[in-house]
Amino acid sequence: MSQIIQLKNHHLDGMSTDFLYHLAINVADTKDTRDIQSQFGDVRFILTGGTSIRMLQLAKYLRKLFGVEDTSDPVDLCKKGHRYAMYKVGPVICVSHGVGSSTFSVVLHELLKLVHYAKCKDPVFLRIGTCGGIGVPPGTVVVTKNAFNGLLRNEHEIAILGERVVRPAQFPESVIKDILAYGARDDDGFQIISANTMGTDCFYEGQGRTDGAICEYSAEDKMKFLKKCHDLGIRNIEMEASMFASVTQKIGVKAGDICVTLLNRLDGDQVDSEKKEEYEHRPFLVLGRYIQELLKK
Amino acid sequence: MSQIIQLKNHHLDGMSTDFLYHLAINVADTKDTRDIQSQFGDVRFILTGGTSIRMLQLAKYLRKLFGVEDTSDPVDLCKKGHRYAMYKVGPVICVSHGVGSSTFSVVLHELLKLVHYAKCKDPVFLRIGTCGGIGVPPGTVVVTKNAFNGLLRNEHEIAILGERVVRPAQFPESVIKDILAYGARDDDGFQIISANTMGTDCFYEGQGRTDGAICEYSAEDKMKFLKKCHDLGIRNIEMEASMFASVTQKIGVKAGDICVTLLNRLDGDQVDSEKKEEYEHRPFLVLGRYIQELLKK
Repeated sequence: MSQIIQLKNHHLDGMSTDFLYHLAINVADTKDTRDIQSQFGDVRFILTGGTSIRMLQLAKYLRKLFGVEDTSDPVDLCKKGHRYAMYKVGPVICVSHGVGSSTFSVVLHELLKLVHYAKCKDPVFLRIGTCGGIGVPPGTVVVTKNAFNGLLRNEHEIAILGERVVRPAQFPESVIKDILAYGARDDDGFQIISANTMGTDCFYEGQGRTDGAICEYSAEDKMKFLKKCHDLGIRNIEMEASMFASVTQKIGVKAGDICVTLLNRLDGDQVDSEKKEEYEHRPFLVLGRYIQELLKK
Repeated sequence: MSQIIQLKNHHLDGMSTDFLYHLAINVADTKDTRDIQSQFGDVRFILTGGTSIRMLQLAKYLRKLFGVEDTSDPVDLCKKGHRYAMYKVGPVICVSHGVGSSTFSVVLHELLKLVHYAKCKDPVFLRIGTCGGIGVPPGTVVVTKNAFNGLLRNEHEIAILGERVVRPAQFPESVIKDILAYGARDDDGFQIISANTMGTDCFYEGQGRTDGAICEYSAEDKMKFLKKCHDLGIRNIEMEASMFASVTQKIGVKAGDICVTLLNRLDGDQVDSEKKEEYEHRPFLVLGRYIQELLKK
């Protein structure tokens, strides 16, 4: 049976209107959301990623894949909000979330509310991104299993009402299984694996880089840290996984994180952008096949 | 004597090149940075803020203020990076940082390195933004004194090499004093105050809102929390202050955070955008006067 997601906030029942501020979407009547349903009710996949340009490219890629004959630029449905971009292609929305958990959590809360008000059936939240790899060749696509935070714990920590709150951070096995089953092909020429991911709040010190404005540890300490990550089954580092996993797990909505490694951190810190475009396209391939397969069901 | 900032990372001495990845600025030779100096060496003010459009508006505003006769759109110097926008107006750069600490810390590390390589003299880092107020009328401009994190501590917490690291988070008094002295005018029709600021990693649960996708506390608990904030001298809540204060304090560079409150959180959670534009302009006024006064010296 198709499921409409239930949010974990009973205060919303008492709100007659809801302005999704950062998306610039107004829910004028929370009891009668037919306008929101007619615009977003058919959405089954909420695809998110860092930059607005990547999300625009993804929307165009999916259009082609779905056989939509339209060469105009997709319309940014959140343009008025000035912060995030949203493009809709049939049952898919592609939304930018910026760099890291703080910005992504804002848009994630509002997307969850949007999908709730629109009564979307069985929605799946997916993130694509770039990341640093640990002990895997650059260009490897990693589908996150357990999400670790910067403290090397498989959980997400958040301050609520001034208190530390810790929540689990795992992605559903069924989603990972489907992404691997439908998204990978033998002749792609790249590796796709399921592994643990570390999501940090800082790109430099938080990920053990030695090329930030501040660094008070040695190169040896850094390597020890990266090896410790590797021992925990962590094969990639980005800045969103633990927040993304914990929020979607708390709500009980299907979610997955698909990232391509741009470098192997055991070899260095600086990002070489030479093959970046080629690598960045790989999650598109995986995601596109996965979605097409699921839409058949 | 004019000071060039020293970074807190001796590893940089051993790097012959440095690619500021997210800014898409390449330092081809770290020992001879004459090209970077010629482009950015005159910069004295690094102005940052959430959205790229606000930074573009700020650049245009400063152009007018400085009497620059050019009606074309300022050029985005970081366009290739697809993540942050940077506009230069004489001795000022205006840079977008997205929503929250995770994204801002990335660009802050790279801006500190840029200013270091460019040998900028006595640079001042300033942030302008919007925020929620606590017990002050909407439209109040708050210049941050002490920055608190979501745990209600006047410090910033960051995970480094898997360990919790805590750093102080205060802005220099001299900068606050100058902003108040030069930025405020009696006939502005709005209040400008210096007070403590809380920077959180979550807009909804982290700030005690009851209108997110998840909320497990009562309206009473929320009010108790906001009153506790008020008792600590906190008059506004945003998502960057504690990280911004701690990183700049660690480096020892001058910095300040100037935000305008869009609502009084003691009265509600939803952002009413009616007077948003008028309010958002206020930090421009304050900042413009402050910069003009300092440039006279």
